[in-house]
Amino acid sequence: MSRLSHPLNSMIIDGRKIAKEIIENLQGKGLSLGVVQAGDNPASLSFIKEKRKMAKEVGINFNLYSFKKDISPSQLKKEIKKISDQGVVIQLPLPPNFPEQEILDCVPFKKDIDVLSSLSFHKFYNKELDILPPVVSALSKIIEKFNIDIEGKKTAVVGAGKLIGRPIALFLLLKGAQVSVFTKERRDSLDLSDYDLVVSGTGVPELIEEIKEGATIIDFGFGIKEGKITGDFKKEKVIEKAKLFTPVPGGVGPISVACLLENLIKRYGT
Amino acid sequence: MSRLSHPLNSMIIDGRKIAKEIIENLQGKGLSLGVVQAGDNPASLSFIKEKRKMAKEVGINFNLYSFKKDISPSQLKKEIKKISDQGVVIQLPLPPNFPEQEILDCVPFKKDIDVLSSLSFHKFYNKELDILPPVVSALSKIIEKFNIDIEGKKTAVVGAGKLIGRPIALFLLLKGAQVSVFTKERRDSLDLSDYDLVVSGTGVPELIEEIKEGATIIDFGFGIKEGKITGDFKKEKVIEKAKLFTPVPGGVGPISVACLLENLIKRYGT
Repeated sequence: MSRLSHPLNSMIIDGRKIAKEIIENLQGKGLSLGVVQAGDNPASLSFIKEKRKMAKEVGINFNLYSFKKDISPSQLKKEIKKISDQGVVIQLPLPPNFPEQEILDCVPFKKDIDVLSSLSFHKFYNKELDILPPVVSALSKIIEKFNIDIEGKKTAVVGAGKLIGRPIALFLLLKGAQVSVFTKERRDSLDLSDYDLVVSGTGVPELIEEIKEGATIIDFGFGIKEGKITGDFKKEKVIEKAKLFTPVPGGVGPISVACLLENLIKRYGT
Repeated sequence: MSRLSHPLNSMIIDGRKIAKEIIENLQGKGLSLGVVQAGDNPASLSFIKEKRKMAKEVGINFNLYSFKKDISPSQLKKEIKKISDQGVVIQLPLPPNFPEQEILDCVPFKKDIDVLSSLSFHKFYNKELDILPPVVSALSKIIEKFNIDIEGKKTAVVGAGKLIGRPIALFLLLKGAQVSVFTKERRDSLDLSDYDLVVSGTGVPELIEEIKEGATIIDFGFGIKEGKITGDFKKEKVIEKAKLFTPVPGGVGPISVACLLENLIKRYGT
């Protein structure tokens, strides 16, 4: 190819390094994180491992409450209520047909450091919450650290799920960005060549190939392709054009976990 | 002036007529609407009057629970819990310093036809609710009735309040529009000359003067200027350029009330 491969000096954001910088300032001794898992989704296992490892690094006790996938939703709710004073994370996805939101709503407000219960999320939405959803917090730290200007800029959010797409879209809106959300139904016509910032969280490996020259790319995707953890963006294409991008793995994943632990300490620390 | 005043045949949306069309299909006999009011905000009095009148037209019993502005929040909560089976509306604004969301959250889920409690709103956000917030429902009906194309279009939402701006922005996002929210902080630089649809709900009379030729203008503003109810848009300016616009009064106000009653019947009707 005659084309220069890095005309812009595109910069890969080192998520592990940023996560490390965050947790270096955290002191979690005496605090506990309880993670509730039902079933054995392979992505969940990897996320849980990351949480356990990072919790240990800041001195937080890590308790895994693991249940078989055939536990009944009502039994699971009872088990969640039994967990005493600590930050609680319900590891998603739950087994098929579980009433996800009902189960998330069993986590008492103070323990809900993932901001996934209706009450917590609505307080975030009302700008009345002391913490941010971890993925929003991760994005917010990246925006700050790299001085990314988003006010009035064209931003795209790919995927409209409640974990990534919708909270991120809300955050960008309230920061004054022009936001377009690309739901599943709009994926066929996914033209992102006009957006200054693209945040994606679909889990469809290498869904996105074309981006704008000089764009910032934030990849919350976590899919598996040919046995390898793969993000939503096709790396070779993005690396040619992006000014700044987060790789998968090692991008926003570890930063989000660090932000989760930061939330726990904000809630329970002294 | 040498300029033609209606180059586009701009069309004023008759909200009262649309409201009438909606309520003609509603049958509310035997159902009740309870409106809780604390204090005597003048705008509230006018909204309550509209609700009472329209409820009567569809056969719904209208009960006003009116309290002085010095009622304590805890007493008000108790009073809300006493109201038996009926749709309940907490008329906003509450007196200054009232914990608004806490009080809205006292309305049980089934009775919350305004979709303002944390639980109801979060179900709407999760696309799991059987009804829409009345203002969203009103916008949605206008979009449908006038075949307004919003997918991929540039839309602006002025004001980011929980009653109008944020639910409308969320709705537009999930419909595939490009959405920009203009919060209070961004009002100085309010350039809307590039937007195909502008929805405003600030209550600042005649805040907006410049719009795009051929735009659709939806005005949820309800301010008072020189003793007259006045919307967020400067009428003389908008009438020159808009393809379609809702006046104040007589625009989205009555449509939203009709949608509220429709919600009540969806919840309690047979």
